[in-house]
Amino acid sequence: MLEDKKPAKTSLDELGEFALIEQFAKSATVALPSTLHGIGDDAAVLNHEGKTVVSTDMLVEGIHFDLGYMPLKHLGYKAVVVNLSDIYAMGAQATQILVSVAVSNRFTLEAMEELYAGIHLACKTYGVDLVGGDTTSSRQGLQLSVTAVGSAAEAAPVLRSGAADKELLVVTGDLGAAYMGLQVLAREQDVFKANPNHKPDLEPYTFLVERQLKPEARKDIVELLQALEVTPTSMIDISDGLASEVMHLCQKSDVGCRIYEDKIPLDPQLISVCEEFNVDSTTIALSGGEDYELLFTIKQEDFDKIKGNPNLTVIGHMTEKSDGANLVTRGDEVIPLKAQGWKAF
Amino acid sequence: MLEDKKPAKTSLDELGEFALIEQFAKSATVALPSTLHGIGDDAAVLNHEGKTVVSTDMLVEGIHFDLGYMPLKHLGYKAVVVNLSDIYAMGAQATQILVSVAVSNRFTLEAMEELYAGIHLACKTYGVDLVGGDTTSSRQGLQLSVTAVGSAAEAAPVLRSGAADKELLVVTGDLGAAYMGLQVLAREQDVFKANPNHKPDLEPYTFLVERQLKPEARKDIVELLQALEVTPTSMIDISDGLASEVMHLCQKSDVGCRIYEDKIPLDPQLISVCEEFNVDSTTIALSGGEDYELLFTIKQEDFDKIKGNPNLTVIGHMTEKSDGANLVTRGDEVIPLKAQGWKAF
Repeated sequence: MLEDKKPAKTSLDELGEFALIEQFAKSATVALPSTLHGIGDDAAVLNHEGKTVVSTDMLVEGIHFDLGYMPLKHLGYKAVVVNLSDIYAMGAQATQILVSVAVSNRFTLEAMEELYAGIHLACKTYGVDLVGGDTTSSRQGLQLSVTAVGSAAEAAPVLRSGAADKELLVVTGDLGAAYMGLQVLAREQDVFKANPNHKPDLEPYTFLVERQLKPEARKDIVELLQALEVTPTSMIDISDGLASEVMHLCQKSDVGCRIYEDKIPLDPQLISVCEEFNVDSTTIALSGGEDYELLFTIKQEDFDKIKGNPNLTVIGHMTEKSDGANLVTRGDEVIPLKAQGWKAF
Repeated sequence: MLEDKKPAKTSLDELGEFALIEQFAKSATVALPSTLHGIGDDAAVLNHEGKTVVSTDMLVEGIHFDLGYMPLKHLGYKAVVVNLSDIYAMGAQATQILVSVAVSNRFTLEAMEELYAGIHLACKTYGVDLVGGDTTSSRQGLQLSVTAVGSAAEAAPVLRSGAADKELLVVTGDLGAAYMGLQVLAREQDVFKANPNHKPDLEPYTFLVERQLKPEARKDIVELLQALEVTPTSMIDISDGLASEVMHLCQKSDVGCRIYEDKIPLDPQLISVCEEFNVDSTTIALSGGEDYELLFTIKQEDFDKIKGNPNLTVIGHMTEKSDGANLVTRGDEVIPLKAQGWKAF
């Protein structure tokens, strides 16, 4: 597919590793006061007031992404966003990233430019500096490793372990769309393989496909909560599905929870596509990954501050640990949650 | 080779990603006061006084290492050491690392335990905390990404750009051994392939082989220089060969240099093995990679402080930029240096 769209112009074999790094480093702007030195030395030099948070993720072709329907620019963007999401899930501000890329010789220099264009766009969108990384060849495919650094200067980082009985469980945005976007893309790819003349019509699925291909991290929520003067007692980002993430909060905080099925925020397009695919939308919201929304707990007295905000939905509350983690269905049945999130093995 | 030594006991497919991460996270000790929270949340939380330095590297099977002669425990150790070396090259103290591992299903849980045993040993040896990472499957082979974080609390980080005309160029330890160690191992592997009954005798090559399989980073030099009250004006670690690294210093500092061939520190075992392989030892020292020694510049007035120290060798001096980067041979010829270091492409 890469070869179809862009004929190979510059083989990576023609360039040295240093040349490649320097080429992309040139376009890495260093804008934040906390970035003293970016790319170009043995290490980047940062100057964070207060606490520093740091997280890393690896993305492997054929496991985490399929270049058959994931354009390289989107991949670069998403790889960054996924990591920034972890920083925002600490209630911190993302400030710097480091990106390592291992790539086989089936990729051209132009393909790498696309990938870095996405990386740079994400940096610009979220106001983070690209301060380091590594570029190397691989035997097969493309592997990306992103490390994100953030600053928790103004408030203490929000851990997974701070939730208490009776606190409210809040989720941002809506759930399940990224997973169903992937199902739509996979179906179109299957059709295309069977009939290469097929012209996919993704128009009815725009929202879902965008959630899959170009997810956004909730930087705005960290700022919103500060503005509302709400300090979450615990927080996590939803990368593996709601059920799995809420169980992480329960486990780390030594509490149970109740999630109300009728409160789970679902986009209308998700509901109609779940009907089309004949799958249960609640199951998709609970187990579909890659939404990168935030899930957090607040004290009951903070409810008035968030009430009515379209970005925030109270979906349940924490309970004593002995109650376990449960879903209360529309039919008022109480059933134990199961973590069935997507796993890399 | 892995299968020969350790029969598959636990397939990675049997375990979830979370189980694997948690299993190895249990043995990750958090010991430093600057590590507030390690593995187990969306991000690690660090509390560094002063400046933070951060660097990352990716190691790919078949490109950077060959498991035919690199045991997994050594690989884990080396992957960490290589990254710590970048932190010490800033004159900083390494404090935390994050390690991501992508691994195909040809590896067993026991193999991963070996890898992490090496990672943990390096952490213990260098006094750094393992605070994060990612574990995922790969389509083929093993890929490792290590991010190292350090603290430059007491002194400003030493950049590559601070060298000036007439300053002395100093190198630690000796050069070329890691590269010749690799040649020895590759030769033994070729012999073994031709004759599987061949018993390799690595005894005469112990030093070289250890430099290749178990390199150490020069944490001691950062401490030594502090004790001697010597502040390098520029510094870099030697991962790609002396010539390539000194040219980085020249380029970033806008100076030239002269290296004296007869001053380049070589181990006697290196000299004899170069004779055996019929290669020029100066070429090996200039272009062979992976020594992880430090190369730095000091002001002339600091010479008395380092004179006679067995860890430190003055190999030349910086010059005006217009003179270029040159080697002065034993025959007093002045020839331009060429960066012929190992490149990943």
